[in-house]
Amino acid sequence: MDANIDVTVREVGLRDGLQTIAEFMPTETKLEWIAAELAAGVREIEVTSFVPPKLIPQFADAEEVATRAMQLPGLQVMTLVPNLRGAERAFALGVHKIDFVVSVSRTHNLKNVRREREESLADLKRIVAARDAAGLRGRTAVAAGLSTALGCSYEGRVAVDEVRRCAAYLAEAGVDEIMVADTVGYADPRQVREVFDAVLAEAGGIPVAGHFHDTRGTGLANVSAALDCGIRRFDASLGGLGGCPFAPGASGNIVMEDLVFMLDSMGLRTGVDLERLLAVREIPARHLAPGTLLGAVAKAGLPTGYVPAAERSAVAA
Amino acid sequence: MDANIDVTVREVGLRDGLQTIAEFMPTETKLEWIAAELAAGVREIEVTSFVPPKLIPQFADAEEVATRAMQLPGLQVMTLVPNLRGAERAFALGVHKIDFVVSVSRTHNLKNVRREREESLADLKRIVAARDAAGLRGRTAVAAGLSTALGCSYEGRVAVDEVRRCAAYLAEAGVDEIMVADTVGYADPRQVREVFDAVLAEAGGIPVAGHFHDTRGTGLANVSAALDCGIRRFDASLGGLGGCPFAPGASGNIVMEDLVFMLDSMGLRTGVDLERLLAVREIPARHLAPGTLLGAVAKAGLPTGYVPAAERSAVAA
Repeated sequence: MDANIDVTVREVGLRDGLQTIAEFMPTETKLEWIAAELAAGVREIEVTSFVPPKLIPQFADAEEVATRAMQLPGLQVMTLVPNLRGAERAFALGVHKIDFVVSVSRTHNLKNVRREREESLADLKRIVAARDAAGLRGRTAVAAGLSTALGCSYEGRVAVDEVRRCAAYLAEAGVDEIMVADTVGYADPRQVREVFDAVLAEAGGIPVAGHFHDTRGTGLANVSAALDCGIRRFDASLGGLGGCPFAPGASGNIVMEDLVFMLDSMGLRTGVDLERLLAVREIPARHLAPGTLLGAVAKAGLPTGYVPAAERSAVAA
Repeated sequence: MDANIDVTVREVGLRDGLQTIAEFMPTETKLEWIAAELAAGVREIEVTSFVPPKLIPQFADAEEVATRAMQLPGLQVMTLVPNLRGAERAFALGVHKIDFVVSVSRTHNLKNVRREREESLADLKRIVAARDAAGLRGRTAVAAGLSTALGCSYEGRVAVDEVRRCAAYLAEAGVDEIMVADTVGYADPRQVREVFDAVLAEAGGIPVAGHFHDTRGTGLANVSAALDCGIRRFDASLGGLGGCPFAPGASGNIVMEDLVFMLDSMGLRTGVDLERLLAVREIPARHLAPGTLLGAVAKAGLPTGYVPAAERSAVAA
C-alpha cells in the first residue's frame, strides 16, 4: 500500500444512523451536523432518505435537509431513495447523488422492501431512465448499493456468484457507483478480498465503494482488506451511529473517526481534519441518549505527538 | 491468504488483563477460567506474573496459579517475569514458557521498569543463561516481548530501525519467541507490515507473535496485516480485559472472541470452539464490575447459520 493516495470517506450517519433512532432529531441539528462535518473535511454526506415519512418519521424533513445541504459549497449531497417515487423526489431537488439499494440476499430484499430482488433491479433501470429523462445525467449520479453482499441475517452466507451477478447487472444498467455493503457485519478480510475482487471484475471501471458494519469487530480489518483490493471509497458514520436492529447494543456502521484515524495513520489522504471531526460529535450527541455514540479514538484520544498525514507529507516533500 | 493454516491464539487476560484490576480475583476463579478456556481450545495461556506481590497484589497467588495450571493436560503455561528474580521463581516451577518484556521506547522502559533499555536487554541474556544453567533448555522457553514497538505514549512514533535493532539483539540472545507488541494501541496496518517485515528479517526463523491492543479500533485490522506478513501467533484477552491505563474507558487487548471469530471465519485453524469460548466469559464476569468485559461477537452473536472452519474443512475434504 503506497501512501499519498486519496481515499474518500462518506458520512452515512444521517441516513443509516438516524433511521434506527426513533426520536426526531431537529432539522437545525441535522444541518449543523452536516455543515460541521463538511468543515472538518468530509465532502460527501448521505444527508437523508426519501422514504415515505409515514414509514420513518425521522425523515419527514427530507426535502428541507437535502435542499439546504445543497447550498453548502463543496458538499456532495447524497440521499437514499427506496424506489422510483423516492428517486423522483430526489430528482426534483437535483441532489448530487442518489443511493438505491438492492439486497443480494433474496430473502432480505423481500423483508426489506417487499419485492423480489429482480423487481428491485428492474426498478434501478427505471430510475436511471427517469434520471436521464429528467435531463439530470451528469448532474445527479446514481449509486447502487448491494446490501447483504457479505452475509445475510436470514440466509447466512451469500454466494460470491450472486454478488457477481448483481454487480454485472448494475454495471450494465449504467450506474455511476457500486457500493458493496456488509449490512449485518458478517464479513472477514479474506471474504472481503474475494467479494470485492469479483465485483471489481464486473464493474468495468465504475467506482466501487465499501460499506462496512462493525457488528462483530471486523469493520476496520475489512476496510484494510478492501484497500488492498484497490477500493478508495468508504462509508462510515460519526460515532458509529446506526446500531444493528438484529443485535441490541451491538455496533452498526464503522466509526468515521476511527476510520479516518486508521487511513490517516497509514498516510492515505482523506482530506479530513481528525481533531475537528472529533469535535463534531458534540452536535448529534445533544439529541441522542448518552452512550449512543461509540468510538475508540474519541475515548482514547490521538497518539502522543500524532502528526496528521497532510503535515507528514508536507515535511517529506 | 490460504485457508487451512494453523494460527495459535494465546490468552493473556490473566496477566495483561488482571494487572489492571485492583480487586483480587480468587485463585479458584482464575483456575476455573484457565481450565474452561483450555477446554474451549485455547492451548497457550499466560496465567500470571512473577512481579513482586507488593507491587501488584493481584499476583500474590502466582506460584499456586502457575503450579496448578501446569497440571492441566495439554496446556502451555506462560508467565510474565519482570526481571531475573521473577524468572528464577518461574524456573523453580519449570513453567513451559516465560515472557520477558523490553520496551523499544527508552522512556517507556525507564518508566515501566526503572531501567535503561540496554540494561533490560542485558537482563534478558542473563535470564537465558540462568535458564540454561538450571538445565531447563528445551523445557522452559524464553519468549521476549518488544513492547511499544508500534508507538509509545511518552515518545509517540517509534523508529522501525530501533525495533529492528532490538529484534536482532533478541535473536542473537537466543530467545525462543519474539513478541511484537502495540502496547498502547497506536498501530495501523501499514505500519504493522513495515515493522513485522523488519522483525521477521532479523528473527532468523524464531517464531514471531503479534500482541495488539484495540485502543483506537485498529486491533483486528492489525492482526489481518500481520497475517499477511506470515505471522501465525497472536495474543488476546477474553472480553478484551486489560483496558489502557492512559485512557480511562478505552479498550486494551484485542478481544479473544472477536479474534477467533475473524480467524475462524477466514478459514484459519485456531482449534478453538467459539461457542464454548463465549461461554467462558461467565467465569471472570462473576468477579468483575459489570461492563468490564467487552466484545462485539459476545454482544451481536454469531452470524446466522455460522459453520466453524473445522466443520467447513470437514465438508470440503
